[in-house]
Amino acid sequence: MAKKPLILVTNDDGITAPGIRKLIKIMNTIGEVVVVAPDSPQSGMGHAITVDSTLTCVKIKVDDGPQIEYKCSGTPSDCVKLARREILKRKPDLCVSGINHGSNSSISVIYSGTMSAAIEAGIEGIPAIGFSLGDFSWDANFDRLEKEIKIITQNVLDNGLPEGVVLNVNFPKSENEFKGIKVCRQARGNWVEDFDKRVSPSGKEYYWLAGKYELLDKGEDTDEWALSHNYVSVVPVQFDLTAHHFIQKLNNWDL
Amino acid sequence: MAKKPLILVTNDDGITAPGIRKLIKIMNTIGEVVVVAPDSPQSGMGHAITVDSTLTCVKIKVDDGPQIEYKCSGTPSDCVKLARREILKRKPDLCVSGINHGSNSSISVIYSGTMSAAIEAGIEGIPAIGFSLGDFSWDANFDRLEKEIKIITQNVLDNGLPEGVVLNVNFPKSENEFKGIKVCRQARGNWVEDFDKRVSPSGKEYYWLAGKYELLDKGEDTDEWALSHNYVSVVPVQFDLTAHHFIQKLNNWDL
Repeated sequence: MAKKPLILVTNDDGITAPGIRKLIKIMNTIGEVVVVAPDSPQSGMGHAITVDSTLTCVKIKVDDGPQIEYKCSGTPSDCVKLARREILKRKPDLCVSGINHGSNSSISVIYSGTMSAAIEAGIEGIPAIGFSLGDFSWDANFDRLEKEIKIITQNVLDNGLPEGVVLNVNFPKSENEFKGIKVCRQARGNWVEDFDKRVSPSGKEYYWLAGKYELLDKGEDTDEWALSHNYVSVVPVQFDLTAHHFIQKLNNWDL
Repeated sequence: MAKKPLILVTNDDGITAPGIRKLIKIMNTIGEVVVVAPDSPQSGMGHAITVDSTLTCVKIKVDDGPQIEYKCSGTPSDCVKLARREILKRKPDLCVSGINHGSNSSISVIYSGTMSAAIEAGIEGIPAIGFSLGDFSWDANFDRLEKEIKIITQNVLDNGLPEGVVLNVNFPKSENEFKGIKVCRQARGNWVEDFDKRVSPSGKEYYWLAGKYELLDKGEDTDEWALSHNYVSVVPVQFDLTAHHFIQKLNNWDL
């Protein structure tokens, strides 16, 4: 029998979140699992790293199972960096992040701690996948994602991923059976903020960030289209942010 | 005379940093300036947003000049969102972020609070530029960047930027005269971390993130090449992260 793959598991909702606990259980059936995840929720952290304060990383046992686990005081990106340099004896064969409580489709990939962990792994040359479910609730039904997570994970282990590419996988919230897995592009859209302005007991004004997502894309090849039609969406994500198509035009500017 | 453009200025080093003070002075010569910037340093915050705590935003006067200024308790992305939705009466004609104390070339664009502010503005449909100087010191010489900042800014105001594209401008640290402005792509490279592990007085282990940049790209069309040859680098940056080149291959997987 071939050697089991070494799989690094992380997330941004924190190491005790039901989403990561389910992902660990699934990964235990596929490989040797090491978990390095934040000790507290890190949602909306984007690709933050801890540059001006210290990090702690402590071995713990959250539940039964063969996995080895560490909780880390930092961001999802910090977790991947610490895992790679300080905890894992060799480069893992795969990094999976999630399962996020909430969608990371369309422009949300930019704000996503889940995807920042996957991208950090990708930067390190580790094949990586972020998994997210479009349901924010703590007791969302993660069991029904198992089949598709196994299929996608096995495909990545078998086929690898090209340099500079990681996968952003999103599951629709609907409890109906998934229609299938669809390869997509990131839908154009943005969050229209509607700040909730309040006044503190001492008279100071403060804000809560609130808002709703606005889809600006009518394409039927996007992750938003797939999710709204009950498909599991898979978007290949790159971290070369160069807008190559604009370089030639820019060269004609009077710079 | 045409109406002056409305320019939003922000950064990630905090509203009192010499880099943003210089940028404000330059922008005052070009347009009507509103500053909404973090009240404390936010370096390495990537595209973080504040979802689970409150934000404050207070009008202040940091120094002389016609600009209107607000300090905000949030991240650079929060500042742009607050400016757009709560502070500015209309959509600004331009958003400039920086001047960052330290380089944001190559893969650093991913971790950069400076660039996350520019990208956030881009998502809102505002032409945006991030400016960074490859010198971390507080008293770096920002005066010598004035000419190129004016040229690039005026070009963006005159030509606009296509939807989904913002500019990442970096200046070399060298005190020699710049050879010119060069349009580039983002160099492939990564940060190789070397965590500094220490023990607290109470016996707890903790880490400091440290590391050095490793260039993995021999191209002469990259920002790293340009900077090391004393050019000012301009990389067009997009936030559609889809790896379009990999979609067809992915469609052949057994999903």
